[in-house]
Amino acid sequence: MADKKIHVFGHTNPDTDSISCAITMANLQNEIGREAQSYRLGEINKETRYALNMFDLKEPDLLSNIDDNANVIMVDNNEFTQCVPGIENAHIQMVVDHHRLNLHTTEPVYCIAEPIGCASTIMYKLYKQDDVVITPKMAGIMLSAIISDTLMFKSPTCTEQDKITAERLAKIAGIDLYEYGYKMLEAGTDISEYTADEVINIDSKDFKNGELKITISQINSSNIDEVFKRKAELEKAIEKKITEENIDLYVFVVTDILEASSKVIVLGNRIDIFEKAFHTELIANTTYLKGVVSRKKQILPALIEAMNQKIQL
Amino acid sequence: MADKKIHVFGHTNPDTDSISCAITMANLQNEIGREAQSYRLGEINKETRYALNMFDLKEPDLLSNIDDNANVIMVDNNEFTQCVPGIENAHIQMVVDHHRLNLHTTEPVYCIAEPIGCASTIMYKLYKQDDVVITPKMAGIMLSAIISDTLMFKSPTCTEQDKITAERLAKIAGIDLYEYGYKMLEAGTDISEYTADEVINIDSKDFKNGELKITISQINSSNIDEVFKRKAELEKAIEKKITEENIDLYVFVVTDILEASSKVIVLGNRIDIFEKAFHTELIANTTYLKGVVSRKKQILPALIEAMNQKIQL
Repeated sequence: MADKKIHVFGHTNPDTDSISCAITMANLQNEIGREAQSYRLGEINKETRYALNMFDLKEPDLLSNIDDNANVIMVDNNEFTQCVPGIENAHIQMVVDHHRLNLHTTEPVYCIAEPIGCASTIMYKLYKQDDVVITPKMAGIMLSAIISDTLMFKSPTCTEQDKITAERLAKIAGIDLYEYGYKMLEAGTDISEYTADEVINIDSKDFKNGELKITISQINSSNIDEVFKRKAELEKAIEKKITEENIDLYVFVVTDILEASSKVIVLGNRIDIFEKAFHTELIANTTYLKGVVSRKKQILPALIEAMNQKIQL
Repeated sequence: MADKKIHVFGHTNPDTDSISCAITMANLQNEIGREAQSYRLGEINKETRYALNMFDLKEPDLLSNIDDNANVIMVDNNEFTQCVPGIENAHIQMVVDHHRLNLHTTEPVYCIAEPIGCASTIMYKLYKQDDVVITPKMAGIMLSAIISDTLMFKSPTCTEQDKITAERLAKIAGIDLYEYGYKMLEAGTDISEYTADEVINIDSKDFKNGELKITISQINSSNIDEVFKRKAELEKAIEKKITEENIDLYVFVVTDILEASSKVIVLGNRIDIFEKAFHTELIANTTYLKGVVSRKKQILPALIEAMNQKIQL
């Protein structure tokens, strides 16, 4: 098995961190003498494209399914529901992630997960551990991922480690961290060319809790009002997806990257879960969540807690 | 949460590695300024007692349940079915393990799992990472765990890293690795004072695969024939447990630590799974498995594969 090519990929609807981890992990494996290739499990978003162009990196090939027993390294994801079809029967060699754990393997694997802002911060440590030089290109894409995942260090998921790592990487990449970072984030917020269908799929993740199917989709914006001018068509696109995929609760999150707060559109037959989780009442399917920017650390745990609360009479 | 005491423990039916990891992790947390206490989830076996006495360490307190939201570090285990009652609602802060992964968390946690022989080998690295001095006592118990889990480096789970770490630890502990190691293993094989019930519970683990309940219990021996003189009473004890706990397949493994092979007693209504997994036919409920010593790397994966194979017509 050890000499078969290793397939490295993040989650579906890839964000900058998933692409960064795939590229940098495949490169790390190559540098330590293993055949490995990075893949993407969906379209590259505008922010990630900006980062790839900036550091002259090619986008990874698209992977639409994986063969039985293929060698795999999962990065920035450990959930099969957010992965490529066939993953259940692949041979997972390694997992590097910073999300909640939801993983079953039949054999022991190498897994490193940390409750930090960005999986690329872990990639930086793995390069150091393996004594592999981080080139300016690799530094650039890792750095872009940290800025993206932490919303320039403003997300509650951001740790001191993420920040220190980003600063070191900026030096290696030879760029001004804040100047480049805000330009990159801004590039990701432009949705003018996207259809409503595309907008809700830019960064969308599905979760299952028992029988319930929940989708949380998130975009960043430097102007929330601009996005909400398209509310009617966005709602239509969300309703269509709810019907097609039998989703019980759909939360569409528009995060203001400068204010570090979000406005949401919530639809589905279980909006009561959202209202319970955030002690709020939706008005015209929407509400403003001050200080809420993280799907992983703020929105998902609150929804899970609301679902798991025992019924109190 | 951060200032509440952290409870550190391994799996039920603790072996030397579970006790070593609990003690050394609690000590590591204390050294970096966090309140932590090690616990055991069951009786200490003779091998572990020998090691604790050798290095003048007290046995951890028994933990029989854990409060909701208590702070927890899981070591040498990540499966709730092999853990303390209440673990589902505890606050898991960290997991250090070398078994297959079978873990769900609602929030990101720090998890380091490696496919190596012994979780204490990971503990050694964590001390190095955190720049905490390993005292001779801590070195002694870690070393004992590596010898135990790898059967003095003979198990297929043993890696170069386990061996190198054991050698370094022997120097710190100031003991002769092989002389001490064989004495410790030998101390663990003496079952003369145990009832049959106790023998099958020395190191017993339960697994669920869908609806099927499997128990694999293992002891080491320097004289398999001596153990099999008690076959009739062992079978009776196993049958009793099968009835009481509705077990579908019970595999009792007696491993010869010098030959690095095992003889098994297999009972239950699904012995066909075992026979399929090892391409063998049981004679009087028993068979000899040459070269098989690892529950984790050899027995469990073979059983799972046999269960998951599609029916071929």
